Amino acid sequence: MRVALLAHEQFPERAKTAQGILRYGDDEVIAVLDRANAGSRVAEYLPDVQDAPIVAGMDDLESDAVDALVIGIAPIGGGFDDSWRDDVRTALEYGCDVIAGLHTFLSADEEFVRLADENGCELRDVRKPPEDLTVAEGVADRVDAEVICTVGTDCSVGKMTTTMELARAARDAGYDAAVVPTGQTGIMIEGWGTPVDRVISDFAAGAVEEMILEAGDEHDYLFVEGQGSIFHPAYSGVTCAILHGSMPDRLVICHDPTREVIHGYDSFELPPIEYYVEQYESLADPVSEAEVVAGALNTAGLEGDAARAAIDDYADELGAPATDVVRFDPETVLEAVC
Amino acid sequence: MRVALLAHEQFPERAKTAQGILRYGDDEVIAVLDRANAGSRVAEYLPDVQDAPIVAGMDDLESDAVDALVIGIAPIGGGFDDSWRDDVRTALEYGCDVIAGLHTFLSADEEFVRLADENGCELRDVRKPPEDLTVAEGVADRVDAEVICTVGTDCSVGKMTTTMELARAARDAGYDAAVVPTGQTGIMIEGWGTPVDRVISDFAAGAVEEMILEAGDEHDYLFVEGQGSIFHPAYSGVTCAILHGSMPDRLVICHDPTREVIHGYDSFELPPIEYYVEQYESLADPVSEAEVVAGALNTAGLEGDAARAAIDDYADELGAPATDVVRFDPETVLEAVC
Repeated sequence: MRVALLAHEQFPERAKTAQGILRYGDDEVIAVLDRANAGSRVAEYLPDVQDAPIVAGMDDLESDAVDALVIGIAPIGGGFDDSWRDDVRTALEYGCDVIAGLHTFLSADEEFVRLADENGCELRDVRKPPEDLTVAEGVADRVDAEVICTVGTDCSVGKMTTTMELARAARDAGYDAAVVPTGQTGIMIEGWGTPVDRVISDFAAGAVEEMILEAGDEHDYLFVEGQGSIFHPAYSGVTCAILHGSMPDRLVICHDPTREVIHGYDSFELPPIEYYVEQYESLADPVSEAEVVAGALNTAGLEGDAARAAIDDYADELGAPATDVVRFDPETVLEAVC
Repeated sequence: MRVALLAHEQFPERAKTAQGILRYGDDEVIAVLDRANAGSRVAEYLPDVQDAPIVAGMDDLESDAVDALVIGIAPIGGGFDDSWRDDVRTALEYGCDVIAGLHTFLSADEEFVRLADENGCELRDVRKPPEDLTVAEGVADRVDAEVICTVGTDCSVGKMTTTMELARAARDAGYDAAVVPTGQTGIMIEGWGTPVDRVISDFAAGAVEEMILEAGDEHDYLFVEGQGSIFHPAYSGVTCAILHGSMPDRLVICHDPTREVIHGYDSFELPPIEYYVEQYESLADPVSEAEVVAGALNTAGLEGDAARAAIDDYADELGAPATDVVRFDPETVLEAVC
């Protein structure tokens, strides 16, 4: 499939979904739409993913050059920004499907529904959860697979990326490993999964458990995509539901060394990394004994030597191996988890 | 309003909603429906609440004797049990409103909708959350009120009851105190509130925050009804969302001394009470410094002397005052929170 990724004014740093698809998706990215960076190329910002031109909007693309438009950004709150409307409209007029992982569903927008009908294309809201979810039974530990969950010190510190990189590295090393996607980007990349943050809160752990049971006897290792942080003022409930619903054996803790306060919640300082480790383990413990066995540091904000030094410090603080799974070889971390 | 409370085969122990309405509601309870206890009276089980006959079903009541049928039980998963259908049907044929706090909405049932239409009565699903919720901003601590949150060692250990009793006792003592209801029973009793367990998980903390902001400048003390437990295999996400969304100043920890394993999840032992205290405080801390200042013990399963002894032990373990707020005077606990 040939896709365009909408990432206005957010590419690359704050366009998690666009980055994830560029890095891990099977689709061919025709263009990134970012009116603030139009005229440049993906490779100028992200040299290690598939390259594509950055354009100002859908009408800079030929109508027969694209099969789908993907909303590649997820603002806090997950709403639809009306400044994206022209691009979605043009995409539908081109006959493209439009794929989004927003809390606000495209399929609830009358104009988009009408245009999709008229042009024979599909609106895919991947954040729409299945209808038949229920409460967890506390049985995720009955599967054969070892369950490894990524956890983090905040949102957007690399949990999805770490999950994808470790599962890939595990498969490359000959292990039978699968990803359990819990967020819109992971679901778009993997083609299955439940958007745990969009589920009724009573059923959030149950949604994770159901995925573990579905995949857990088919594979030797499951890498569960974590969300948020247990100290996030808005999202800790989702984090906690994944931690208990997945009943993990091992945890990999993700962090960005340049992050000092919770992103978007600047009055909340991040506690020390040791406090996170202690709290993730002690919170998990009565439900499943899960140990933080490794760390994943997102060093994109640091130069080479500083990145290496930050990783060494991080490993010392954790008392466990650590690396940047994108920038360096994930082998040391993989050995700790598989 | 004259109400009948449906509590088939669950009254009184497992009929939390029915008990809450009998104890704290303003409505006149005409009868409890419990086919397993038909012929007895509420007073035989609960001497300290309003009395009512227990009957086998709606058709044991006169059609003009009741204004509303309330579903007074909430099974795990929150589904509608089809063995209740005859009673709901009869109630609607009598012209009664039907009020429920289930995950499965009465208003999604075609037969009930048709019967309600035909008989000019209302289906009220109190667990249906408002449409306009969003993520928390981490600002609940900006209100003038002191925020006291009840937390617990499991479901059904007395968080709702403790919240109601402490708010009443505070008002009796001359404080301006209000309840922030987060579950169906509390909402039915108080006439407002948001069913946090039914909210999209990303918005759960936001739903609590919104209630705190709504009530927090109108009162000196807010008593927030907690849900579940931070170590519950299914509901910990809801607990965590309330803990962080309400940004409490103080916590009151509720427990049932006869409880050894998580109710309905028998393979999970309850950790020691000290572990709960430590974990509730350390989990809250990076978002709001909240201290466990008192304990509420549900001693319904113990005789008088044993109850007193259990409360003394509990207070020792907590290092804080404790009582059974229903059985004994809540004053010592109230002094610790107000």
